[in-house]
Amino acid sequence: MTMPGYVDEKASIQRRLRRIEGQVRGLRGMVDDNRYCIDVLDQIAATTRALQAVALALVTEHLSHCVAHAIAEGGAEAEAKISEASAAIARLVRS
Amino acid sequence: MTMPGYVDEKASIQRRLRRIEGQVRGLRGMVDDNRYCIDVLDQIAATTRALQAVALALVTEHLSHCVAHAIAEGGAEAEAKISEASAAIARLVRS
Amino acid sequence: MTMPGYVDEKASIQRRLRRIEGQVRGLRGMVDDNRYCIDVLDQIAATTRALQAVALALVTEHLSHCVAHAIAEGGAEAEAKISEASAAIARLVRS
Amino acid sequence: MTMPGYVDEKASIQRRLRRIEGQVRGLRGMVDDNRYCIDVLDQIAATTRALQAVALALVTEHLSHCVAHAIAEGGAEAEAKISEASAAIARLVRS
Repeated sequence: MTMPGYVDEKASIQRRLRRIEGQVRGLRGMVDDNRYCIDVLDQIAATTRALQAVALALVTEHLSHCVAHAIAEGGAEAEAKISEASAAIARLVRS
Repeated sequence: MTMPGYVDEKASIQRRLRRIEGQVRGLRGMVDDNRYCIDVLDQIAATTRALQAVALALVTEHLSHCVAHAIAEGGAEAEAKISEASAAIARLVRS
Repeated sequence: MTMPGYVDEKASIQRRLRRIEGQVRGLRGMVDDNRYCIDVLDQIAATTRALQAVALALVTEHLSHCVAHAIAEGGAEAEAKISEASAAIARLVRS
Repeated sequence: MTMPGYVDEKASIQRRLRRIEGQVRGLRGMVDDNRYCIDVLDQIAATTRALQAVALALVTEHLSHCVAHAIAEGGAEAEAKISEASAAIARLVRS
C-alpha cells in the first residue's frame, strides 16, 4: 500500500485535529451559553486559522514526498502530480 | 440577561456546528486510514467553508439585532457597536 | 443625489487605490524583468492585502453611514440594507 | 541568467496584469463618481480574485519548472526549493 506524504507527521496532525475538534465543541458550548456574537465569531476565526495551518502542513508534506517522488521518477506521472497539487492549492486559496 | 443576536437561529447554528464537529472527526479518521493527501486537503477546505458560512450567518444576525438595536438607541453606543462589528468582520476576512 | 457612505474618506481611498495601481504596474515591471517567481508572488500577496484593506474601510463607512441611516429611518428599507450589506460581506470573505 | 518558471507564460501573465491595472483604474473612477459602496466592494472582490488567479498560475509554473528542476537535480537544493515554495503558498493562503 502506498503511504501518504504526511505519514511521518501523522501523530502531530492527529494532535492538531483533536485540538480543532475540541475548538468546535467549545463553539457549541459558547452558543449554548448565549455568548456574545463577537466572541463566537473570533473563536470561529481562530478555528479556521488552525484548520488552514493543518492544510498547509499537508501541502508541504505532499510536495516533499508524493510530488518529489513523482518528479524523481519523471514522465507523465510527474506532470500529473504537479497539476493535481496546483489544483488542490487553488481550492485551498479560494476556500 | 442580554440575548445574543443569533438567539432565534440557535438551533440551526448548533446543527451546523455539530455537522462541522463530525467533519473534523471524519478528518481524523481519514488520517488514521492513511488517506491520500489531496483527499484530506479537499475535506479540510470543505470544513473551512462550512465554518465560514456559520460565521457569516452570525454576522448577519449580529447586524440585524445587536447593531440595529444600538443604532435605533443612538449615541456613542451605536458608534461603538459599528466599530466593533467592523473590526470583527476584518478579522474574519483576514482569517 | 445620494452620497455614498465613503464620501468623507474619498481622498484617503483614492490615495490608497492610486498606490495599489502603482503596485500592479510594479508587478508588470517585475515580470518584464524576469524576476524570481517567489518575489512576484509575495508582491501579489501584498497587493491583495492592500485591496482587502480598502474593502474593509468601505464596509466600515457603509455600516456607519448608509446602513445606520436606513436603520434610524426604520422599516423595510432597514432590513433590506442589512441583507444587502451581509451579502456583500459574504462575497468579500469568499473572495 | 536563470529564467523564472513563468517565462513561457509571460505574455499571458502580462495581459492579465494589464487587465487588473485597468480594473484598479476603474475602481478609482467609480469612487470619483461617488458610485454606491456595494458596487465598489463587488468590483474590489473581482479584482482580488483576478490577482489570486495570477498568483495561482505562477505557483503552477513555479512547481512545474523551478521546483521540478531542483528535485530532478536532487540534494539540499531540492529540499530548499520545496520549503521556499511551501512558505510562499502559506503566505498566499493567508493573504
